[in-house]
Amino acid sequence: MPPGGGPAADDEERLARAALTRVLEPGDELGGRWLRRYGAVELLRRITARDGGAERLDGMTAKRLAGYRLRAEGAEPERDLAAVAALGGRFVCPGELEWPGQLDDLGDARPTGLWVRGPRDLRLWALRSVAVVGARACTPYGSHMAASLGAGLAELGWVVVSGAAFGVDGAAHRGALAVNGATMAVLACGVDVAYPRGHAQLIGRMTEQGLVIGELPPSDHPTRTRFILRNRVIAALTRGTVVVEAERRSGSLVTARSAQRLGRFTMGVPGPATSGLSMGVHELLRGEGVLVTNAAEVVELVGEIGDLAPVGRGPVHPRDLLDAETARVLDALPYRGTVTGRDVARAAGTSTDEAFGRLYELHSLGFVERHGDGWQLTRRRTCNGDARRGGT
Amino acid sequence: MPPGGGPAADDEERLARAALTRVLEPGDELGGRWLRRYGAVELLRRITARDGGAERLDGMTAKRLAGYRLRAEGAEPERDLAAVAALGGRFVCPGELEWPGQLDDLGDARPTGLWVRGPRDLRLWALRSVAVVGARACTPYGSHMAASLGAGLAELGWVVVSGAAFGVDGAAHRGALAVNGATMAVLACGVDVAYPRGHAQLIGRMTEQGLVIGELPPSDHPTRTRFILRNRVIAALTRGTVVVEAERRSGSLVTARSAQRLGRFTMGVPGPATSGLSMGVHELLRGEGVLVTNAAEVVELVGEIGDLAPVGRGPVHPRDLLDAETARVLDALPYRGTVTGRDVARAAGTSTDEAFGRLYELHSLGFVERHGDGWQLTRRRTCNGDARRGGT
Repeated sequence: MPPGGGPAADDEERLARAALTRVLEPGDELGGRWLRRYGAVELLRRITARDGGAERLDGMTAKRLAGYRLRAEGAEPERDLAAVAALGGRFVCPGELEWPGQLDDLGDARPTGLWVRGPRDLRLWALRSVAVVGARACTPYGSHMAASLGAGLAELGWVVVSGAAFGVDGAAHRGALAVNGATMAVLACGVDVAYPRGHAQLIGRMTEQGLVIGELPPSDHPTRTRFILRNRVIAALTRGTVVVEAERRSGSLVTARSAQRLGRFTMGVPGPATSGLSMGVHELLRGEGVLVTNAAEVVELVGEIGDLAPVGRGPVHPRDLLDAETARVLDALPYRGTVTGRDVARAAGTSTDEAFGRLYELHSLGFVERHGDGWQLTRRRTCNGDARRGGT
Repeated sequence: MPPGGGPAADDEERLARAALTRVLEPGDELGGRWLRRYGAVELLRRITARDGGAERLDGMTAKRLAGYRLRAEGAEPERDLAAVAALGGRFVCPGELEWPGQLDDLGDARPTGLWVRGPRDLRLWALRSVAVVGARACTPYGSHMAASLGAGLAELGWVVVSGAAFGVDGAAHRGALAVNGATMAVLACGVDVAYPRGHAQLIGRMTEQGLVIGELPPSDHPTRTRFILRNRVIAALTRGTVVVEAERRSGSLVTARSAQRLGRFTMGVPGPATSGLSMGVHELLRGEGVLVTNAAEVVELVGEIGDLAPVGRGPVHPRDLLDAETARVLDALPYRGTVTGRDVARAAGTSTDEAFGRLYELHSLGFVERHGDGWQLTRRRTCNGDARRGGT
């Protein structure tokens, strides 16, 4: 491993992480442990090299290694990065500025990285997001409630997160879009794959106006397991999960239970006790879940209206403590490279004086660096957020 | 006041209490305090006598006293007792064996006495009872759920208590009756008044197969205030209250909140969030109320199946500690007068030997007294359960 955490090393780690999204299945905790210990470059090297380094990894079996090797041999991370970039997308790694820090609560099941499409800042959006999930084969009542919650939450300034599936998920996304609100889809496949096909247009709108994210590399397809493991990302990403219609033992309840374990709020929309599609929700509400009937009740639970910083049980990041104006200026800086103060002002929609004032404030707080006339985001952590390396 | 608490004094107190049910409105806490302090005979004497005794009662005003006097002058307790007796009914006072001790939790708002019709033991039934209440103008869904809960609770051996109103109340009673189960109506009028008229037949069936009780003397009619105050009796009498469909600020929610304050369980049946008739229930479920969708879930909360003694937060009476067989023998003894051991065996449906064994056990526990061949219930407390008097 190279000493120091300069940009070159970061790029190498990024590339290795991109490759690993094709090697490690979502939620592979053993892989996540090795990744945390050795970093992506070294883990990938051990997997592909025939020097016995991988066999010595704690918990590795011959069968598992064979699977890893097969997938690693097929990995072409440069091509994947280029493919997603060609669609206007990007790859976000733990520790990077756009990385939603609350995903770290997943421990070794944290995603290796996230493939992201859409013109919004993932981290900022995730801070103020609520998941609305539920049955694919929902009733008209379920669909109505999901759309109504989606629109209501968006109107109250919250980001509506769901899985882009038929039924409740789609209705929640559409509800948010209907009021020109913020909505984000977490896919169980590559962000260039429109699944389900019938939602190609809906997903397309979100890549243009919202965010579409996923753990899986471009062109990869969903499986049953991937759907289930995708739910942990939805749960960890958001401040709380609302379940609208769910049968017993449904995927939506998996999301809700993950949310509970992670200390997030879990909520459910009641329905007729005679409806099988409400049974799962009622089960949840007889446990830790909180009954909600509209967006205001959801927001009452997950946070205060107009307050950008999360309150209560969610993780707190230094960035959350910034006021809205300063956060908008911070948000106007690109992920990479430098810009002028004038560029920042234009992007943030503020005066140049105001922008400079905020930039100096951000500078003193360590969020940005100044190089002559250029401003850029401070690379505060290495790409591999956890692995301790010499230079950082 | 006469010294000693012999039967004559008890009868005098009973008569005074019967008269007071016509003088004190349900829930009159000031009246209840005087009653506790001075006993019924003395309180009635002060109210009717012109010696200034009533004026010296703590908190009495001239206007209030005028009202009391007017009503006391119209009271004919012997006639009321005879009228109810002619219908096969009775008057039950605090401290008497059929008195449900948990009503004492109401403090000075405890009923002065209860007028009772029906062939069942009020105290024993109340021990294992659940209230099912809700909107009069309920939806077919509400009616279905109330009937289903009524039948289910009755089948699980619980007594279904409600207010005999149209809608949810009636459906709950009918559900219990449909499976030949136990059900009790608490009226806001005299127990000889069928209110609402459209439920005359339903109330009639309960006087024959169940219980119909109320605080108000025969022929007295309901008022809005009496309906609301009736709800506190339903709440106090039962182990828990289930609300099936209720608008915000409805009478059913009053019952539920009374139940909460008294430490009873409060439950609600969810419905569509789009239904105004479920809004009150959802409000309850967002607070302390527990969501229930069937009778088994209710019973899971309020007590264990097959267990006669209440568990949890309800009040515990010595009688509750008896095993089922002994309780049945105790139950076979009449409220007044003596019977032979053979009579008891016949009434309890057990062998004479068994009956004698249980009777001696009950004797040693102080529940029954023996006079030659005759057995009778011990009059453990004076009619006026709280007033301390010389002879008791």
